[in-house]
Amino acid sequence: MHDLIARLLPASNWLRSYNRTSFAGDLTAALIVTLMLVPQALAYAMLAGMPPQMGLYASMLPLVLYALFGSSTTLAVGPVAVAALMTASAVAPFAAEGLDQGVMAAIVLALLSGAMLLLAGLLRLGLLANFLSHSVIAGFINAASILIAASQLPTLLGFSAKGDTLFALGQNIMAGLSYMHLPTLWLSLLTLVILLLARGHFKSFLRWLGLADFATTTLVRAVPALLVLVTTVAVHAGMACFDGVRTVGSIPAGLPPLALPHFDAAILQALFLPALFITIVGYVESISVAQSLGLKRRERIDPDRELVALGMANFGAAVSGGVPVSGGVSRSVVNADAGAITQAAGLFTAIGMALATLLVAGALSELPRFVLAATIIVAVLSLFDASVFLRTWRLSRQDFWALLITFLLTLTVSVETGIAAGVVISIGLHLYRSSRPHTAIVGHLSGTEHFRNKDRHSVNVCPQVVTLRVDESLYFANARFLEEKILELFATQSDMKHLVLMCPAVNDIDASAIETLETINQRLHEADIGFHLSEVKGPVMDRLKRSDLLQHLNGQVFLTQYQAYEALSCLAKKD
Amino acid sequence: MHDLIARLLPASNWLRSYNRTSFAGDLTAALIVTLMLVPQALAYAMLAGMPPQMGLYASMLPLVLYALFGSSTTLAVGPVAVAALMTASAVAPFAAEGLDQGVMAAIVLALLSGAMLLLAGLLRLGLLANFLSHSVIAGFINAASILIAASQLPTLLGFSAKGDTLFALGQNIMAGLSYMHLPTLWLSLLTLVILLLARGHFKSFLRWLGLADFATTTLVRAVPALLVLVTTVAVHAGMACFDGVRTVGSIPAGLPPLALPHFDAAILQALFLPALFITIVGYVESISVAQSLGLKRRERIDPDRELVALGMANFGAAVSGGVPVSGGVSRSVVNADAGAITQAAGLFTAIGMALATLLVAGALSELPRFVLAATIIVAVLSLFDASVFLRTWRLSRQDFWALLITFLLTLTVSVETGIAAGVVISIGLHLYRSSRPHTAIVGHLSGTEHFRNKDRHSVNVCPQVVTLRVDESLYFANARFLEEKILELFATQSDMKHLVLMCPAVNDIDASAIETLETINQRLHEADIGFHLSEVKGPVMDRLKRSDLLQHLNGQVFLTQYQAYEALSCLAKKD
Repeated sequence: MHDLIARLLPASNWLRSYNRTSFAGDLTAALIVTLMLVPQALAYAMLAGMPPQMGLYASMLPLVLYALFGSSTTLAVGPVAVAALMTASAVAPFAAEGLDQGVMAAIVLALLSGAMLLLAGLLRLGLLANFLSHSVIAGFINAASILIAASQLPTLLGFSAKGDTLFALGQNIMAGLSYMHLPTLWLSLLTLVILLLARGHFKSFLRWLGLADFATTTLVRAVPALLVLVTTVAVHAGMACFDGVRTVGSIPAGLPPLALPHFDAAILQALFLPALFITIVGYVESISVAQSLGLKRRERIDPDRELVALGMANFGAAVSGGVPVSGGVSRSVVNADAGAITQAAGLFTAIGMALATLLVAGALSELPRFVLAATIIVAVLSLFDASVFLRTWRLSRQDFWALLITFLLTLTVSVETGIAAGVVISIGLHLYRSSRPHTAIVGHLSGTEHFRNKDRHSVNVCPQVVTLRVDESLYFANARFLEEKILELFATQSDMKHLVLMCPAVNDIDASAIETLETINQRLHEADIGFHLSEVKGPVMDRLKRSDLLQHLNGQVFLTQYQAYEALSCLAKKD
Repeated sequence: MHDLIARLLPASNWLRSYNRTSFAGDLTAALIVTLMLVPQALAYAMLAGMPPQMGLYASMLPLVLYALFGSSTTLAVGPVAVAALMTASAVAPFAAEGLDQGVMAAIVLALLSGAMLLLAGLLRLGLLANFLSHSVIAGFINAASILIAASQLPTLLGFSAKGDTLFALGQNIMAGLSYMHLPTLWLSLLTLVILLLARGHFKSFLRWLGLADFATTTLVRAVPALLVLVTTVAVHAGMACFDGVRTVGSIPAGLPPLALPHFDAAILQALFLPALFITIVGYVESISVAQSLGLKRRERIDPDRELVALGMANFGAAVSGGVPVSGGVSRSVVNADAGAITQAAGLFTAIGMALATLLVAGALSELPRFVLAATIIVAVLSLFDASVFLRTWRLSRQDFWALLITFLLTLTVSVETGIAAGVVISIGLHLYRSSRPHTAIVGHLSGTEHFRNKDRHSVNVCPQVVTLRVDESLYFANARFLEEKILELFATQSDMKHLVLMCPAVNDIDASAIETLETINQRLHEADIGFHLSEVKGPVMDRLKRSDLLQHLNGQVFLTQYQAYEALSCLAKKD
């Protein structure tokens, strides 16, 4: 019974042992995260091209649902920058027909993403996210952060311009430059400087002033919220330097109604692929940060449970009219640092967001847009990592090309094309690499039972017994390569009477490879050459036994290569 | 200079040493192959839904070009059954607009296929054909042979009906049954029985009659040609039982003009994918039979040169108005058996086909269609292999599913869908399998330097030093699996102070996997656990040295696992 409850509602685990210490830690963390989240929620909704309240709505119910179903004590769920960019690009065709259509599309996106996450969690497909290699993710995130930063430039300059690709955006910005509002530009630069200082020297400055650690941390984290407050008040007070500055505009008062918009099946189909990409990218980011923070606490993060919890959170976003959500990297780190002890921190953050929406949302209509744009730019700056290009180049050329192509296609064509091309290239390169396995003709190392590559070591080989070592599992994509390698040996090693295939690194074998071995065996048999195997691993041997190969084998299977050399009387001659 | 000629015109090799023995062998083989090829060329053109002369045209120039460029002395190029089926399905939309459009599309198909083969040969992409696993090919060929046999049923019954899938074809046959022509049915059955007997008992019967081996072989191979002759004469003589039997219809006299039809770029685009599939399937079949026959003669088949030669052959087919060509399995075997010594056998076959076209093609207008249909059915019967389902099931479930799905989709949806699905499934299953590599916690085998899986062997493990052996190369698709495996160890092995990753079977590592190792290292470092590597292979070590991992490594790299156990003082306690 207890197990059943624990499985259906994972939160029962932490709820049972909840105490005053946990409460104090969670409440403090929630306070700090709420201060960060208010401007971010508004900013990411704006980045997604949606009305600001959709960011606030995505910061309440989803957090409650994650707290009930999630396995991480620190993951801070909500609107995030990259998902907002992807949402903007996915809903653009709908938003072109009117804001209502765009809002509907964003909600359907959250709904689809929730369904995909939930399904993947129930089918235990967490590992599928692996097919995004680190290089593809790095290329994509770098391009996305440039796109996000660039998309905020017009707002910093005081006009509006959009574009799905860097090129389109650049053109629209150039065309709009004549609408530039100089006061907005100066205020934007000032805001950027303050935000950047707050990330860097402000903390040491406050410490130097003698502030306590906790106060310092809270103040630093609250800088964006303070900027929101100060600039909103300035606009409201009619300060001259804020004349003509564009503001957020009216935000409806109150909490979101729980309802889904009306939509038809054609929309589901149109948004299927974008939703899949948002889901994968969001999940990969969330699980990475959750595991990274979890390890410090010796906390086990269950990938399949995370899928379910993130799925529920996105359902929550959809029914309460929010944008798609996932685990935010920076907010999660802040949440953990600020002392969150259980998932209740997320619950308290949701309450904080609800209070903020009820009490101050109305006033935020006079918040200048450039403040949010500056917040976004500073947030995504931390995502950009130029050194990854050089590091990957040094490490592996193939990974570098996957990285570069993902990066360039994301910037110039679309987010989806970039990721899809990256995945296809990664898989293609992997197949190509494994389709040409490393092989070596080996010989006997005198006085030992070891065998080594004859090109690298001084070893004894006997010309009538050629031993080929294969350093890769055998499967359809490399079976023919092996066949050709052996045909080549056959044509070049004219004294060959026996061929030994040494398999110490063959971890797996498939039906194609077994059939190829049968073909090789038959061909060597016709040419009157013995075909032997040595050092075959257990699972591979099990499979070979189920095939006809061993019955027809024109030779033997040797446990060790040394035994093969002994049996084929290569040792006597040499030693 | 000599090398250059040899490279540009490979035929110079065999032309230089050509002598009377070669001439006799090649001429005999050409005679027998020509007798087989006349009815097959007409039949496969009919199967492709094309006028019969297109099969004849595809049996002249392509053979000459292959003889000049090919590396196999025995491969008999020309129209083949599977390519004919694929051509029929690819050109169907064009043929619906009129026969001229269909003919044009078939020629463009040969042209595209020629360009693809040539390009692949120049780029040395011969190994790309590997991505068709044996299971996918077997599933496809089995389905294709059923489709081909079924497509000939209406002709055997004396009416015509078409259909791309087994289902559509079945429906059209049912609908057409009322047009069945009984005399045709009886003659068809008689023809089938004769052809089947000729394959089986006829040879022993002729030997029993006391005929020489050569005469026996020639007679057996000539049975289809004799049937063509006898039935054509019977129709011409107005024999009563041939009343109402459908005949081939007029075949233009003379050799084909060398010209390309007019076509636009849209057609190239529409036929691109079908041409790709015909190219891949044709190439795989050709290279397999060429290598198989080549090995018996210790003859080296160069895959890239074969690509070029098959590409030239298809160009030849296109400019002389023929259907796409590839190496025919049965004709190549016959060619080799009949004593072909050099590529000149193909040249002589081309001359034989030209003579046949000039002398008898006009008369063949009265050849009954059912004879060709019966020839096709008997030819594809040898392609069908029901036992492959059971064999593959016993060998590997994953391969079996790839086989079955390819088979079913080819039969019920389309040839292209079947192959494409098979390739995607094969690659997907391979990635899935390698994304969950085999790992084992190993311990020390007393009194030796060996380490074995602690679940399978009685070994000494020390609780503070956990050794995990990975039995697969590490790359993006399995890096996270390893990470989770280690996080799990971390949560379950509470005494762990050191983790040793034993890598004797890690043949390769990519940037994602290295980054994952860095993450693991950092996380274990934070938890105050040592992270060590042992038995790292040379190429993997080279790559690790180019990364930052070794500088940050919170532990050591040991040459052998035994040294790791020694250094971490696990041995002293136990031994």
